[in-house]
Amino acid sequence: MRKSIATVSLSGSLSEKLTAVAAAGFDGVEIFENDLIASPLTPEDVRARAADLGLAIDLYQPFRDFEAVPDEVLDQNLRRAESKFEVMERLGADTLLVCSSVSPDAVDDDGLAAEHLNLLAGRAREHGIRIAYEALAWGRHISTYDHAWRVVEAADHPALGTCLDSFHILSRASDPRGIEEIPGEKIFFLQLADAPLMAMDVLQWSRHYRCFPGQGGLDVAGLLAHTVRAGYRGPLSLEVFNDVFRQADAGRTAVDAMRSLLALEESAGLAALPETVVPSGFAFAELTAADTEPLTGMLGSLGFARTGRHRGKPVELWEQGEARVLVNTSGSDRRSGPSLAAVGLESADPDAAVRRAETLLAPVVPRRRGADDVPLDAVAAPDGTELFFCRTGRSGHPSWTDDFTPVAARTAGTADDGDRAGVTGIDHVALPQPWHHFDEAALFYRSVLGLKPDESQDLADPYGLFRSRAVAGPGGTLRIALNVAPSPEGEATRSQHIALATDDIVATARRLRGRGTAVLPIPANYYDDLGARYGLPAERLGVLRELDILYDRDGSGEFFHFYTVTVGRVFFEVVQRTGGYGGYGARNATVRLAAQHTAQLGAV
Amino acid sequence: MRKSIATVSLSGSLSEKLTAVAAAGFDGVEIFENDLIASPLTPEDVRARAADLGLAIDLYQPFRDFEAVPDEVLDQNLRRAESKFEVMERLGADTLLVCSSVSPDAVDDDGLAAEHLNLLAGRAREHGIRIAYEALAWGRHISTYDHAWRVVEAADHPALGTCLDSFHILSRASDPRGIEEIPGEKIFFLQLADAPLMAMDVLQWSRHYRCFPGQGGLDVAGLLAHTVRAGYRGPLSLEVFNDVFRQADAGRTAVDAMRSLLALEESAGLAALPETVVPSGFAFAELTAADTEPLTGMLGSLGFARTGRHRGKPVELWEQGEARVLVNTSGSDRRSGPSLAAVGLESADPDAAVRRAETLLAPVVPRRRGADDVPLDAVAAPDGTELFFCRTGRSGHPSWTDDFTPVAARTAGTADDGDRAGVTGIDHVALPQPWHHFDEAALFYRSVLGLKPDESQDLADPYGLFRSRAVAGPGGTLRIALNVAPSPEGEATRSQHIALATDDIVATARRLRGRGTAVLPIPANYYDDLGARYGLPAERLGVLRELDILYDRDGSGEFFHFYTVTVGRVFFEVVQRTGGYGGYGARNATVRLAAQHTAQLGAV
Repeated sequence: MRKSIATVSLSGSLSEKLTAVAAAGFDGVEIFENDLIASPLTPEDVRARAADLGLAIDLYQPFRDFEAVPDEVLDQNLRRAESKFEVMERLGADTLLVCSSVSPDAVDDDGLAAEHLNLLAGRAREHGIRIAYEALAWGRHISTYDHAWRVVEAADHPALGTCLDSFHILSRASDPRGIEEIPGEKIFFLQLADAPLMAMDVLQWSRHYRCFPGQGGLDVAGLLAHTVRAGYRGPLSLEVFNDVFRQADAGRTAVDAMRSLLALEESAGLAALPETVVPSGFAFAELTAADTEPLTGMLGSLGFARTGRHRGKPVELWEQGEARVLVNTSGSDRRSGPSLAAVGLESADPDAAVRRAETLLAPVVPRRRGADDVPLDAVAAPDGTELFFCRTGRSGHPSWTDDFTPVAARTAGTADDGDRAGVTGIDHVALPQPWHHFDEAALFYRSVLGLKPDESQDLADPYGLFRSRAVAGPGGTLRIALNVAPSPEGEATRSQHIALATDDIVATARRLRGRGTAVLPIPANYYDDLGARYGLPAERLGVLRELDILYDRDGSGEFFHFYTVTVGRVFFEVVQRTGGYGGYGARNATVRLAAQHTAQLGAV
Repeated sequence: MRKSIATVSLSGSLSEKLTAVAAAGFDGVEIFENDLIASPLTPEDVRARAADLGLAIDLYQPFRDFEAVPDEVLDQNLRRAESKFEVMERLGADTLLVCSSVSPDAVDDDGLAAEHLNLLAGRAREHGIRIAYEALAWGRHISTYDHAWRVVEAADHPALGTCLDSFHILSRASDPRGIEEIPGEKIFFLQLADAPLMAMDVLQWSRHYRCFPGQGGLDVAGLLAHTVRAGYRGPLSLEVFNDVFRQADAGRTAVDAMRSLLALEESAGLAALPETVVPSGFAFAELTAADTEPLTGMLGSLGFARTGRHRGKPVELWEQGEARVLVNTSGSDRRSGPSLAAVGLESADPDAAVRRAETLLAPVVPRRRGADDVPLDAVAAPDGTELFFCRTGRSGHPSWTDDFTPVAARTAGTADDGDRAGVTGIDHVALPQPWHHFDEAALFYRSVLGLKPDESQDLADPYGLFRSRAVAGPGGTLRIALNVAPSPEGEATRSQHIALATDDIVATARRLRGRGTAVLPIPANYYDDLGARYGLPAERLGVLRELDILYDRDGSGEFFHFYTVTVGRVFFEVVQRTGGYGGYGARNATVRLAAQHTAQLGAV
């Protein structure tokens, strides 16, 4: 279906917005009136600019507080409308959104509202314009879509139809099945927005917290399916008021918006995208470091062995169990120290995975590949992390590991099996997200990789609340924790981490303790509280306390975890899950974050 | 009364918090359990640190989900309590806050709740500890203060009392008069917090948006008065969960907190502060500039005349009507260009004004005054702007203008009366506020200067929503608009402005146009909309359009205003108010902000 977006959804001048919308591949725009009013471009300029960019002007909006008013106010309102019709003719826009009135002038009289809307539609038709009447969720007398439709039906004018808005409908928990009772040709427009589920005043919720479909908690796909079944064939148009998007780069937000619509069409069964290939695990984590010593020292002390060296690039492979870490000395920034630059994801079909990612507008990473290297496909996640789709060691397929020349055991920096610490693989990685793109990230992982986002959680750092939202594959085969800082300041330096799995955390911790691994010290007070909270046996509590192991549990299992100190931007976590524990120890995050600040200060 | 604050109200480690609390002059603290758990300090360390700082530990909190549970859960809960009593003994804390249960284990049985609380109080007393039971606004069965008190009364134990929390009581719109029916000695603790009036889930409201009394919309002073009338003599203790305060500097937040309590005691009639001397107008605005040319060029073109030169400092006085602008070349930063550094406020009693400001912890500005200079007292506002209290040209009092040597007319940069543009005085100044200190600023102007804050408004800039909150004296004699940017990034460069009053904006605008003053161009689309919105006569609209004058009106009058381009960090506005218009043209802010971005880019 045609795709459109309201200019209010993006930051910048009207000109910047149009450019961004066109670049992201939209077919049209809704011109939000305030964007035109504040623009130095004349309506004719805007029309020409949109035409040059290949954009239709699908809607002009909003026209407020029109209907069901006393006669003298009606006269003023009709004059006001005539003036807008003139602007629309200059713009080349043929549909005007009229919102249900919130004015104290309006009376509760559906017949009068219908009569006035009929009159307005008649005037509009003289200009070749159609009126799309929409119920605001906080409309004074008309606040539901079915009520708005009854008034439109009663007004019975060919230039009058209704506009449906997923936020206004779903925020009030109206039943969207009734949409199918509206004749499709009378649905003049469809505006789409999602929102996180929040118990708050609907006007504030609407004006500040809307997001693109797939980023919130509303069933926008279901609503869309009903609307198409009703016979609607107009554009799918996003209208999102969001405090963060208003600050973000317009070009990037527009791409996020388009990705949302593509995924939405698929969810609603309206379009097929290349099949989702959900990754089944981590192939590797790739760290870049100009100076590898602090990092390889840490890896060695964690029981990793250097097992390979890339044939053509300055990259080393370190392994322990199924955990593989690449250390890459090319292209890193010495000042920021080691950082996590890429993640390898096990994929049953890397080509298909890349096709889907490309279709969903994920940037494909330019390959810096030698002639003989095994093909390795990657896309960039919203935070810049490169995601490689890998088939590690599967018979009949080339494996990226073939590009590495094995390193003889017992050379410096390697460990033989006796030195291993029991790490079995990578449990999850945690990636700090750009402050302006946290919603984008959740949608990216959901739509591109088929991972399921958890609810967002607050984590109290001593210097502000972080938010964290994990995405995971079915059965927890792949887990990524996405974190966002309290404010956009200094975000480039925020830490990333790699969580390693073990089946016996006590043995692993003891082994590491024995070899002097720098483990993050946890305050004694934490264990006093832990004992009180869970009534753990004294002996068990003593072991946790001795080894700086944190503990959590939920209805289905237990979670044990400890942390290393931070090297550059990166630290490691070692975790053990028992039963069906599916979380990340969020309850312990406050203690961990405070301990990291303490460790960084190097003092109590 | 004694003053205390919960550690959760401040950012940082527990040690930083204690230091900040003591420095701000508090008598005690509530230790928020998570702050202790995350601290590397032992309870004994904390006790010693607090004692060294002269702080009592007035409360340990919170203890959750205790009462009205099945027997086996009760046993666990009592064990949990015993463990906390031990921690409290180590801390030297003698009062434990117990919140009403939110657990699904809890049953709706007041008798059982009372029985369990009696049991808990008995155990507590063995450790010399008292239990203060508080109703959470979202408690499962007990969510109002009067209900909590009935349970405490029924439990009837000397070591059991109630804790009142202004947020929990006022957020539910409970009637606080009932507090007077509780015997004062059974009110073991009083927690104070304000909050902006918001229609949202009370738990989220409480956890993210609380603020210090006087910064929000709850009648905390009234509640306090009832509590004191009940006979409460314990500490006034602030407990504020606020996302912004969590990020702000703890030392500064603690001072803000103490200012709030001092003003609150005064509002509740519990303490007298030096009398409020509400300023009656602007004496001057002081701009600093390393290179004065762009600024004095602008002042000259606006019709200001250079009328004086300071006897001992590199400061010039420029005047027009009652508008006085000082141009100071000392101490300014060349890179940021001209900026507004100080404001002179007309005060009937400068000494008294400074006494009040000092009592309310406003930093007194060190005087850089020559031996013969007229005394001029200043304090620093939260954004660093210096506020001078002046008595300009009053007979019998020295005037700051006496320090200026008159400049002969017709010298360069002066204008004779024929060149004046009709500016009569300063209408208001607009000051961008530090992102972390917007609530602090409103309280500062309210408590220190006796100005009344308006409601906060959103202003849509092309790159994010600004918030704006004006403070004004009675009858609009003094108006200051406080603005805060969408995020803390780059806030040092945000612009300030001086709004000049005229009685005839058209004549002033024509005069300025004639002399080539650089006025901010307003888009033609704005006037098309203005005509439609208000049905202004074509001729009048034409004049506004020609002169780039913006227009607004409210129920009592009209507002006309135009802007100059920005020089350094500063721009000027010229305004005319008719009737009783009391606003600032906020409706036009979107257009002005967009026009400023356009002008800054120097291109359409």
